Amino acid sequence: MTRCAPGGGGVRTSRSTRDNLDKSITLPPDEIFRNLENAKSFAIDIGERDERGRGPDDEPLYEISVQEEITARLHFVKFENAYIETCLDFIKAHLVNTETKVIKATGVDKEDEMTCLIKGCNFVLRNIPHEAFVYVKHADPEFRFQTTHPDIFPYLLVNIGSGVSIVRVESEDQFERIGGSSIGGGTFWGLGALLTKTKRFDELLQLASKGQHTNVDMLVRDIYGGSYESLGLTGDLIASSFGKSATTDKEFTKEDMAKSLLHMISNDIGQLACLYAKLHNLSRVYFGGFFIRGHPLTMHTITYSINYFTKGEVQALFLRHEGYLGAIGTFLKGAEEDNPNQYSWGENYAGSSGLMSTSPEVHPMQRARSGTFDMLEMDRLERQLVNLPLLLDASSYVPDTVDLTEDAMAREYWLSCFEDALDGVVKRAVASQPLALDAAERAEKFRQKYRHKLQTLRHQPFAYGSLTVRSLLDTREHCLNEFNFPDPYSKAGFVRSLISRIKINGKYARPWLVDAYDDWLERLKGPPHKCALFFLLSRGTEIILASNSGPALNDVTCSELAIVTERIAAMDTVIRTALNQDKLLLVQSGSSSPCLDLSRLDKGLATVVRERKTDLVVIEGMGRAIHTNYYAALRCESLKLAVIKNAWLADRLGGKIFSVVFKYELAPP
Amino acid sequence: MTRCAPGGGGVRTSRSTRDNLDKSITLPPDEIFRNLENAKSFAIDIGERDERGRGPDDEPLYEISVQEEITARLHFVKFENAYIETCLDFIKAHLVNTETKVIKATGVDKEDEMTCLIKGCNFVLRNIPHEAFVYVKHADPEFRFQTTHPDIFPYLLVNIGSGVSIVRVESEDQFERIGGSSIGGGTFWGLGALLTKTKRFDELLQLASKGQHTNVDMLVRDIYGGSYESLGLTGDLIASSFGKSATTDKEFTKEDMAKSLLHMISNDIGQLACLYAKLHNLSRVYFGGFFIRGHPLTMHTITYSINYFTKGEVQALFLRHEGYLGAIGTFLKGAEEDNPNQYSWGENYAGSSGLMSTSPEVHPMQRARSGTFDMLEMDRLERQLVNLPLLLDASSYVPDTVDLTEDAMAREYWLSCFEDALDGVVKRAVASQPLALDAAERAEKFRQKYRHKLQTLRHQPFAYGSLTVRSLLDTREHCLNEFNFPDPYSKAGFVRSLISRIKINGKYARPWLVDAYDDWLERLKGPPHKCALFFLLSRGTEIILASNSGPALNDVTCSELAIVTERIAAMDTVIRTALNQDKLLLVQSGSSSPCLDLSRLDKGLATVVRERKTDLVVIEGMGRAIHTNYYAALRCESLKLAVIKNAWLADRLGGKIFSVVFKYELAPP
Repeated sequence: MTRCAPGGGGVRTSRSTRDNLDKSITLPPDEIFRNLENAKSFAIDIGERDERGRGPDDEPLYEISVQEEITARLHFVKFENAYIETCLDFIKAHLVNTETKVIKATGVDKEDEMTCLIKGCNFVLRNIPHEAFVYVKHADPEFRFQTTHPDIFPYLLVNIGSGVSIVRVESEDQFERIGGSSIGGGTFWGLGALLTKTKRFDELLQLASKGQHTNVDMLVRDIYGGSYESLGLTGDLIASSFGKSATTDKEFTKEDMAKSLLHMISNDIGQLACLYAKLHNLSRVYFGGFFIRGHPLTMHTITYSINYFTKGEVQALFLRHEGYLGAIGTFLKGAEEDNPNQYSWGENYAGSSGLMSTSPEVHPMQRARSGTFDMLEMDRLERQLVNLPLLLDASSYVPDTVDLTEDAMAREYWLSCFEDALDGVVKRAVASQPLALDAAERAEKFRQKYRHKLQTLRHQPFAYGSLTVRSLLDTREHCLNEFNFPDPYSKAGFVRSLISRIKINGKYARPWLVDAYDDWLERLKGPPHKCALFFLLSRGTEIILASNSGPALNDVTCSELAIVTERIAAMDTVIRTALNQDKLLLVQSGSSSPCLDLSRLDKGLATVVRERKTDLVVIEGMGRAIHTNYYAALRCESLKLAVIKNAWLADRLGGKIFSVVFKYELAPP
Repeated sequence: MTRCAPGGGGVRTSRSTRDNLDKSITLPPDEIFRNLENAKSFAIDIGERDERGRGPDDEPLYEISVQEEITARLHFVKFENAYIETCLDFIKAHLVNTETKVIKATGVDKEDEMTCLIKGCNFVLRNIPHEAFVYVKHADPEFRFQTTHPDIFPYLLVNIGSGVSIVRVESEDQFERIGGSSIGGGTFWGLGALLTKTKRFDELLQLASKGQHTNVDMLVRDIYGGSYESLGLTGDLIASSFGKSATTDKEFTKEDMAKSLLHMISNDIGQLACLYAKLHNLSRVYFGGFFIRGHPLTMHTITYSINYFTKGEVQALFLRHEGYLGAIGTFLKGAEEDNPNQYSWGENYAGSSGLMSTSPEVHPMQRARSGTFDMLEMDRLERQLVNLPLLLDASSYVPDTVDLTEDAMAREYWLSCFEDALDGVVKRAVASQPLALDAAERAEKFRQKYRHKLQTLRHQPFAYGSLTVRSLLDTREHCLNEFNFPDPYSKAGFVRSLISRIKINGKYARPWLVDAYDDWLERLKGPPHKCALFFLLSRGTEIILASNSGPALNDVTCSELAIVTERIAAMDTVIRTALNQDKLLLVQSGSSSPCLDLSRLDKGLATVVRERKTDLVVIEGMGRAIHTNYYAALRCESLKLAVIKNAWLADRLGGKIFSVVFKYELAPP
């Protein structure tokens, strides 16, 4: 199963239970613990264990991971210490007594902590697109998300908790702690507390953000009057951290000392990380731990340090879900008998709270909220997702045509567009469940949730990595699912949709916006294709008809297509013969989106594509061929076909609404 | 010239000048500036320049290097800031107006600082035996001096001043600053001052020596209750420096914080040094800078750190004259037109104040004194000194038979022995200069100086590296030289000495203490040797007669031997023929000691040894064959001959006074 089953998952915590919960703790929001009751197993990561259960803030965080019994979904919740008792009471009352529950906690087996961390890291790198990012302080956006490389190993993980652990990860099961340092987050916090009398980690960071380290540090120019050119040292390089306080009697401000301390520690860790990366010939270095955990200031100082020491050869990479690694790893370790790596996973945008990283003074409220409850939900797909074997270069393939985190105008348009369309979607959702009494109520909740998501994305476009039309569509699907509208377009829509698509060719006057139709006709005079992926039905070419595994908008799903195809076959000899001779295959794509990510296709489809020596790929529809894959380079011939059903987009592409795109690309030489 | 010319050098600063000097500054002791007046050139290193002229203590040190005009000797003086004015006045009044003076100061040309440091480092490594040492805190002695390796390159120099510079030195002229860190001595001092309100560097070290870092640092066992075995982390490893001060509200003592800070910084530098050493495949890593400068505590913490991070593969090495590197390099750079590397140099034990390193609380007075004035004098030999080409393994050759720093009983005996002999030496010195009116006065000064040296060595046996009978003899010679007794044994002694040596064979009844005489006679029945080094005169074997370049005790010098040989040749046909046929060569050894260091021989001798294909080495005399070289392994046959003229030593070797040693060793297979 790839999604929340109707009526399953999310909202079934009974009203009374939730009320009791609300009474006893006021907060948290009722959605936080909602999934615990249906959980099959759950894992608790008791936070930064080297703080003896205390996190970096005065109110340390706990993490809980839950796997639901009915839906194949993982829930990870981080919440403040204050709620741990409530949580445990809830667990005890509702979960422990049932036979099916399995309780795992990393706190128990100390030896497993690092193992869990690495497992979690491997998991997010493998399963969450745009998990890793580079931080660029003055850029807009400040996050540059990395396309997930198909082969994630080897890499270096620098975990900066109280101290620093530097771990080389070789494979899923092999890692080695190759170095470490006692100068870590605990040192910033501990020394910072002694120097500034400020006991809170976040406050120390705030102080640091306002300080001038040059008042405390001795710079190269303080010694030499300028740069030390023969040694390649610039004048503003720190020669000695806190060097000025050695010989001066004046008082230093808390801000300046905190800043100096931050630089000292970040630079040191940066240099160590670089040296270990060089020594072990590793180019991918991920930073995590509570010192990093989304703090822009520490991400910036670490990045700066890495750039300085490697002269740009190595990039400092951070992880969106770095704070969940331990919890994820704990769960995976507990679920090892299930072999979780045989599945694929996808982030559920409805259930995940997203990256809330902003500098403390800009969005103090958001940080506070984020610090209280953070959630990550992962949907499980029973099958593995892999690259389309025909991708020209899988490591550089980017499915989305426009990155809305970078294109502010496009972002503004599409966010408004989706907001404007919300009324219609709500209506359609209610209409899709005429027999459900609470459909209107649920649809209203969906509206609020999705609108809130859109508002959040307006301010934090990087919240889920890259922002694209695809991710906006996916988020809407996820939100609909959360409120039990798995398929608002079911029944009525799909046959009409299918039929309309087949008619495109005759309906629009040429020349089209992108018109390679003549080239294509010319090509058809040549030797027939061995096997086409997607949609073509003539000339003896085998056809793999890939369609969505799950519903998305009015797109036809694989199971629906099977029904339709059967009906057509009953009427049409060509289709019937093709099916009987195994020349027309219906295969699910692995996607449940109107868009298409060719790097996350069902493994079965990939196998068939390879076996049949597919030499033509046809990608059809605005979501699959325009919003995504418009620039995708393949190793074989391809057709990208769509009607631009959006005026703004048509205008951007230099056409009008209902312009036709008929893009025909040859195989590269 | 290899030594102070009679009447030259040291003591000629006029009484009146010295009095004026004394009046104006009370201290320094009159010997400090005594040599400035005769200086041909001098260099001033204005201390730790990155402190803007301030050293690590409240009274920073200045360094002056002087080269005398008459004698080939370098003087390096370090003294407190307080005396800089006096020094400059003195220089101005006495030196600047004369045409011959050249003034160099590193302070002027900032680009040269590192170059000078490296030049100085190369110089001491090349020219001062036992310059480098390993520090072993609980060992006795705590210093383990390293035999100077003939090839000093490549090495890593980690200079810990305010910050840290990590420099790879490839050759005499090639070096690269490959790394560095802002966490250095200035950080210890600066952060220490902020945390403890203690402004003096030495006091901070004293605080640290009394502290318990475990009260402030979070250890692995504080987190995990013990070790973290799967990661190989022991329980007492520091997980987070100052980690306990992050979460605890209690007050920490100054001592504990200072200790924690020291560990933090030392461990960090240690790890960086190790990583750079590994990355550049270097096994020799020298540490210097004011953070180190003889402080046992910092040498210990750095050593500990290096041992931890390299698992013993790399040793932390320190330098006895680390504090002089800048001054030496400054001088050498100034004297580049002289090509100083064509000479050899030797430490003058009379003029050098030696290593005074002890923990601050044990010898606070000595440290204070040492901090006020430190001196190093280097004697120049006009020729290069090299290894005897016949040494079996030059890199493992150790000239001295007994290391008195390790053998406490032997040390006690020899120190007393030399003290007891002092009266006799003084008498002989006076007698050697019957025409000098001030001989008695100078001899008395010699007595005081040498006795003081012996007393110092009793408490600081490591003051000049290794302590040996050879170094005690050398020190006596140097002290005699300093007071213008270059050769107390001149004239009267030497002929008698030479004659007596020739008679040894017939004088003592066999069997001798070591008696290989029969083996030797048997050998003589075999094929004659091609060329013998030293003393043999028969059977057609060529002879190289190596004798001292300068006087030592009653040993014959090369120039004296020339006279004697001439006289003998006039009387003896065999000798005359040998000389005429170039089969008897008189060559100076390069040594001015009754002992013999085969790794510092005159280059001319080494050339002849090689050219003549020498296959027998005869080493004769207690100093050359017993105190030194008794265990020396050679590539050819060797004879080691001596009469033990010391009851204690004879007893130790299992014999009686006047026991004969006749050691005959074959060439290794």
